Parts: sequence; structure tokens; C-alpha cells
Amino acid sequence: MYDLIIIGGGPAGYNAAERAAESGMKTLLFEERELGGVCLNEGCIPTKTLLYSAKVLDYANHGDKYGVTVTGASIDHSKVVDRKNKVVKTLVSGVGAKMKGSGVTVVRSAAKIEGRSSNGFTVTAGTDKYEAKKLLVCSGSEAVVPPIPGLREAVSGGLAVTNREVLDLRVLPKQVVVIGGGVIGLEMASYFNSVGSKVSVVEMADKIAGPTDGEISKILQNNYAKRGVDFILGAKVVKVNGTSENGSVEYEKDGKITAIPCDLILVSTGRRARTKDIGLEEVGVKLERGAVVTDERCRTSVPGVWAAGDVNGKIMLAHTAYREGEVAVSDMLGRSDKVDYRSIPSVIYTNPEVGVVGETLDSAKRAGIDAEEHTISLRYSGRYIAENEGGDGIVKIVVGKKHKNILGVHMIGSYASEIIYGAAAMVAREARVADVQKLVFPHPSVCEVIREAMFQIK
Amino acid sequence: MYDLIIIGGGPAGYNAAERAAESGMKTLLFEERELGGVCLNEGCIPTKTLLYSAKVLDYANHGDKYGVTVTGASIDHSKVVDRKNKVVKTLVSGVGAKMKGSGVTVVRSAAKIEGRSSNGFTVTAGTDKYEAKKLLVCSGSEAVVPPIPGLREAVSGGLAVTNREVLDLRVLPKQVVVIGGGVIGLEMASYFNSVGSKVSVVEMADKIAGPTDGEISKILQNNYAKRGVDFILGAKVVKVNGTSENGSVEYEKDGKITAIPCDLILVSTGRRARTKDIGLEEVGVKLERGAVVTDERCRTSVPGVWAAGDVNGKIMLAHTAYREGEVAVSDMLGRSDKVDYRSIPSVIYTNPEVGVVGETLDSAKRAGIDAEEHTISLRYSGRYIAENEGGDGIVKIVVGKKHKNILGVHMIGSYASEIIYGAAAMVAREARVADVQKLVFPHPSVCEVIREAMFQIK
Repeated sequence: MYDLIIIGGGPAGYNAAERAAESGMKTLLFEERELGGVCLNEGCIPTKTLLYSAKVLDYANHGDKYGVTVTGASIDHSKVVDRKNKVVKTLVSGVGAKMKGSGVTVVRSAAKIEGRSSNGFTVTAGTDKYEAKKLLVCSGSEAVVPPIPGLREAVSGGLAVTNREVLDLRVLPKQVVVIGGGVIGLEMASYFNSVGSKVSVVEMADKIAGPTDGEISKILQNNYAKRGVDFILGAKVVKVNGTSENGSVEYEKDGKITAIPCDLILVSTGRRARTKDIGLEEVGVKLERGAVVTDERCRTSVPGVWAAGDVNGKIMLAHTAYREGEVAVSDMLGRSDKVDYRSIPSVIYTNPEVGVVGETLDSAKRAGIDAEEHTISLRYSGRYIAENEGGDGIVKIVVGKKHKNILGVHMIGSYASEIIYGAAAMVAREARVADVQKLVFPHPSVCEVIREAMFQIK
Repeated sequence: MYDLIIIGGGPAGYNAAERAAESGMKTLLFEERELGGVCLNEGCIPTKTLLYSAKVLDYANHGDKYGVTVTGASIDHSKVVDRKNKVVKTLVSGVGAKMKGSGVTVVRSAAKIEGRSSNGFTVTAGTDKYEAKKLLVCSGSEAVVPPIPGLREAVSGGLAVTNREVLDLRVLPKQVVVIGGGVIGLEMASYFNSVGSKVSVVEMADKIAGPTDGEISKILQNNYAKRGVDFILGAKVVKVNGTSENGSVEYEKDGKITAIPCDLILVSTGRRARTKDIGLEEVGVKLERGAVVTDERCRTSVPGVWAAGDVNGKIMLAHTAYREGEVAVSDMLGRSDKVDYRSIPSVIYTNPEVGVVGETLDSAKRAGIDAEEHTISLRYSGRYIAENEGGDGIVKIVVGKKHKNILGVHMIGSYASEIIYGAAAMVAREARVADVQKLVFPHPSVCEVIREAMFQIK
């Protein structure tokens, strides 16, 4: 008999397991694959390892701007993948050690909720049965493969890959078509562009990077267009030809059909919650559009069952999952806590990086908030100028018109990934412009442009 | 007749001038050299330009760790200096444009306070006289050249240089001796080490990096020692031989005298406030140990006279100067404001970077605060592991024992320079550990180790 059974050992699950066990709950964690989930094994971490190698290559190739001459720079993609595997292995075993250290029982198996028991719930894994007072569902998400004619065959044959398989390619493609210009698509487009592949991004919307502020999306697009990435926006992929090696992607734009030849297709058209085969229906957990319905305390419709991470279909980001896992555990323990969805930052690890948090002017308007935005060039930063020849980064602050409270911060440029957490704290505590003016930022830094922007808001 | 005369156009002066003029004060700014002061012309910005080029070279030379092969990488120091000059010129003219845009009158001349007038003060510049109701002294600081036998001659002959001249060298030295292992000495040692010079750092104290947390100083020292920098600590320089090209530095350690041959000596033994020839004595501004005495509102001992920046001898950092200039202007305008000296961050732009803010355990003890420290490896961050083969960075959190309020954050590792501002905000608002636990940091990032550290504080 456990206090808590967690289904899924990704960021939501393993983090919740650690916090629960440390708080004295007898905790069991099920994971059918590797600990760490998509994030660690086929998402955040492996992509960042690849992107860092690409960045090192970019530095070497563009050193002349900074007085550094390099005669020959090349990347060994297979070595990069080996290193990625090493990094992932280190981190996965780190998670394992954490589980052990905090006294979490880990069962490496798929698990299914069988139903209620006298004290809680029964979960089966193969022929074994387990019981717990409480359940936490952290089954994550999986890549959507849209019903495009020929796509499934291309996936089976290896011509088309999702976020998972793309990370284990041993040979670099010559010409890649990325279907879907969201975060995953853009990060991999960035990698392939750096290492010399020809890259086309086909996106249905008329902008890249999903809900990212339009001006920032455009700057990002322009940066990659200059480096040779071909963006085809407002275009619908209608057919995929070929199953391995050479094929093509046909898209329709303005009523005209065009084919792009390619030797690799990356499918990055979105992800969906994994809610099947877990037995959610056995206890009546409510789903909506395929995802588990949860509130800001991560409670599901069934008392005693919580859910955290991608499975709720809200903000499919690892750090959201961490926080949701923690909040679920706090709630189980009767501690007052909730997820503040307004202040969750989001990063695109391209070069330049994008870091955003909170409302855009558009989203504020849609929410009926009386807001205004102020945009300032990162060239206000001496460090930015010193480190970015020709850089065109910006930071955009969205504030409430009346109280000048900070509702959103949107940034494109170097270090945005590491700067945005401080802006998230401002949004979380509803800081006002005058509060931030009184903080001291180090000089010279890129982050100090956020402070400078505050003085342009009157 | 001006509302405000500012003496000195560095960070304190030009920033105060802009804020004052925008608030409607008729403002005159004196600067005898280039706008931007030491920071922009011979400090923060030029060094960061050099250090970035060195970083690009380091990336190329160590790319193999990340699967990138570079056959020949070299740095053209003269080009780096040209680029530095271009960056500085861009930023200096930016400051000029700011002054013009906000309606500040700039006089490019030395200025001297002559005395009081019926409505305020009289200031002379050559034969011209100016009057203002209020004065703000921002005359900055200058490098100290200690009275070591032979050193003045070496400075005259060009063998020895300060932070100013070192930035305009056209030929790289073969063997550099850095006298003084503080921030300036370490940053330049880092540059010379990267570009291939042999570097020795001689420091009187038994640690480098001044008041920086001892463990962090040690990690920094070990990193550079591994790369070949020779640290001679607890050693006193007793004599300098030579005046140009080849010479040597003699130091005494444990009663024994040793000579290090060198073709360049960098003197980085500290800076002192510039209070001479400004006429401070004409109006009776109180000095202490050569610096202008100011309170947290930047008032001097004389009503109507404020001082900001290095001239007060407090925390000689450009961002402190910015804030002090702003506070002085706020105070002139009758707005309640003061400098929070507890929460001013400080950065060393070495590789790894150091970013610190607030109390160390030592300084807390000396201040009689009941504190404890918690140290966590940056290897908790997947991004850190992905980007730093063999990295040994840490973050250290100092909290009050009773309330678990954050008193200090000390960090060594990648992005510390851009991460520390968020920690400074925590210190400024006296955030508690539980507050930071509820914030969402982006994943994967190095900054999220700060959050993780909060969960290790029980």
C-alpha cells in the first residue's frame, strides 16, 4: 500500500515523486521507458546538446567578425550524437539516483489504473497489482502525425521523422523539409542550417513560432532567412512522396501546388496528451479534447486523482510540468498552492534565442486587459553591441495602462533564455515599472535593457 | 543659470543628466575627455569586446569536445583593438545623441567649482563661468599606481600599463605580469591567457577576486591555473626592473625574493576617487579617505551638492553609478528614493563567469546576521552539462537562519553575468525561499539551479 502512485517518470512525475517522498509519502513511480521522459530523452536536453555544438561551429565560421580567423571548421554529426547520448545518459542516471536518494520506488513498466479499492486505487503493471491512496497521472504527450497522404508510409520507411528519431540520425541530410514552424521545428531547422543542410520550413499559419509576439517571430524568421532557410508560410502540406532516402513534400499555397525535393522530413506539427491505455476511464477521469481536465491545483474531476505535465494539454513545457507536479503534491499534503499560468516563461533555443513570458499586446487585448507595449532595441546594451555584429534583437514590455504593472516581457537576442526568468518573477509578483527602475542590473549586460525599457514607459 | 550642473560624463553623470533633463531640469554636463567615462572608454565595454573575441577563439580551440573540428584558429589582436575602438565609438556617440535628445547641454571641458553664488553655485571652465542651483559631482576614479620602486619609470617607459593603456596595445605580449588579482586584473589575465601570452598574477592577499566568496574565488583560480595562468598569492611586489620591452617583476613571498621576467606589466591594484582640482574644498564638501562622503540619497555634506559614482569610493561599479545618479536626481526633485547597497550585483567576465550579489556567509557573520549557506553544483542543470564538458560551476545561496530570507546569491559558471540580476531582485525585495520555489524558471537553463537550490534549504 502506497500513499501515492505516479504514472510516468518525466519532469512532472519524477519531480513530484521526489517532493512527495521527501515530505514523507510512500511513493511509487511507474515509467515504461527511460526516466526523464520526453524532455530528457528526446526533447529539451538532447536538442540543446546538438544546438550547442552547432553554436560552437557557428562561432568558428563567423569568428572573422570578431578578429578570429579559422581556416577549416567542420562538425562530426555522429560524434555530436554520441555526445548527446552521453549527456542524456548522465542525466537519466542522475534522475535515477535522485529517486533512490529520496526513497521513491521506481517500477520500470507500463501501468494501468484498474479501479478503486477500499482505501484508494488499484494499479496494475503486467500481472502485478499495486494499491495507493492517491494517484498522480503524468503520462505526458506524443508527437502528432497528421493525416497527410503518404506521410505515414514516409514515417515507416524512415524518410519522415518526429522529434524522437531526428535526434538519432547518424548521417546529415542534404535537404530537409520541416513541416510545422513551431518551437521544435525551428530549433531543428536551426541545427540543420548551421551544419550545412538546405532547410525549408512549411507552416500553415502566416507566421512562425506559434503564439510568439509577431514582431519577434518576424525578426527570428528574418535572421534564418538571411542564413538561407526557406520559409513557406500560409501553406498546407498536401502530399508526401517517397519512403526512404529521396522524396518530396507537396504543399498548396494560394491555390498552387509545389513540390520540394528532400531526403529528410521532420514532422513537428504539434503534440497531444497521452491518455490512452492508462485506465483513466476506469475511475471516470474527465477528458476534454483528448487531455485530462485539471484545475490550477492540478486536481482532476476525480477526488484522489491529480494530473500534471503535458497530459493536461495546457502548456506543454517541462518547467510547467515540474511546477504542476509540485503543486499536485502540495495539494495532496493540504498545503495551499496553485500554478500561476500567467507567469510561465517560454524559450526558443535558436540563435538568436527567444525568451517570452506573460501577455503579448494581442493576448492582453483578447483578454480584455487595457494594455500598452514598449519596444526597445538590444543595441542599448553595450555588451550586446560588443558581442553581436549587426544584431537586431529587441525587448518588448507589455504593461497595464492604468497601473503600469508588468504583464509581459518578450525578448529576442543573446542570453534571452537565461534572462527571462527574472522577467517571469516580475510578471508573477505583478511588479510595477517603478519597482524595476529601482533594481540594479549589472553593467554591461544584455538584461539591463529590460531596466532601460522601464524608463521609456511614462 | 542652470538648474543642475554635473561634473563628469561617465555612467553616473550622463545617466543623471538624462533623467534630470527629462524631468524638466535645465542641465549642463561637463566632460573633459570622451562622454561615457572610464566604463565606456577604458573599462567595462572595451574589455568585454576583447573578452568576447577571446571567447570566440576559445570556442574554436576547444570545439573538439563538442564534435567540432577546427584546423587553424588564430586571433588578430590589432583587428580586435580596431573593433573595440569601433564599438566604443558607436556607444560614445550614442551617449552624445542621448544627451542631445533629452536636451542636456554638454561642455567638453574640465570644470571647477568656484564657490557659492546668490542662487546656488558657480563653476568655471577655462575662462567661462556657469551658474546652477544644484551640483552633482561625478568625477569618477583613477587607477592607483602603488609606490613600488621602478614602477613609475616602467609606466613612463611603457613596460607597465594600467587598465587604460592595456586596451590599446597593438602587439601581444609574450609574458605578462599582472599586479593585483582583482576583477580588472583577472579579466585581462583571462584575455592574455586565451590569446596565448604567458600570464602570472601576483596578489598580496591569499586569494584572488577581492571580497568574492572564497570557494568561488578558488574555483575561478583553479580553472585558470589549469589553463596555465600562474597565481602567486600572499606575495608583495617589491621592485620592477626595466622600462620598455623586457623587464621583470620582483616579489617577496615567505621571506624569499623571486623575479618574473616579462615584456608587459599590468598594474591593477585598485582605484581611487578623483576629487582633486574640482574645487570641492571651495564649498566645503567633506571627504573621507580621499572620497566624497555621501549618504544613501547621494547627498554630500553640503546642501545643494550631490555626488554619485566612483567619486564616493563606495562600490566602484558602473551600474552602482547609474543608480546613484538616478537617486541623486530623485532627491533633487523631492522624490523619496535611496540606493539599496545590499542588493547591487557584481560580475567578473572571465570564463567561467562570476556573478554575485548580497552577503557572503563571512560578511553576514561580520554584520552579526545569523545566516547559513547552501551550495549546489551547476551540474544539476541539463543545459550546463550539455554546454560545459567538465564544468565545475556552483551556486551558493546565503539565507537568514530564522526566516529563510535570501541574503546573497553567489555563482560561478556560464551565463552568471546575465542570471545574477534576478537574484539581485530577490535580495532587494527580501524574498524568502518559499517565494522562489513558487516561481517557474525555464527549462533547460542554468538559472534554474537557483530554484533547485531553494529545495535543498529546509
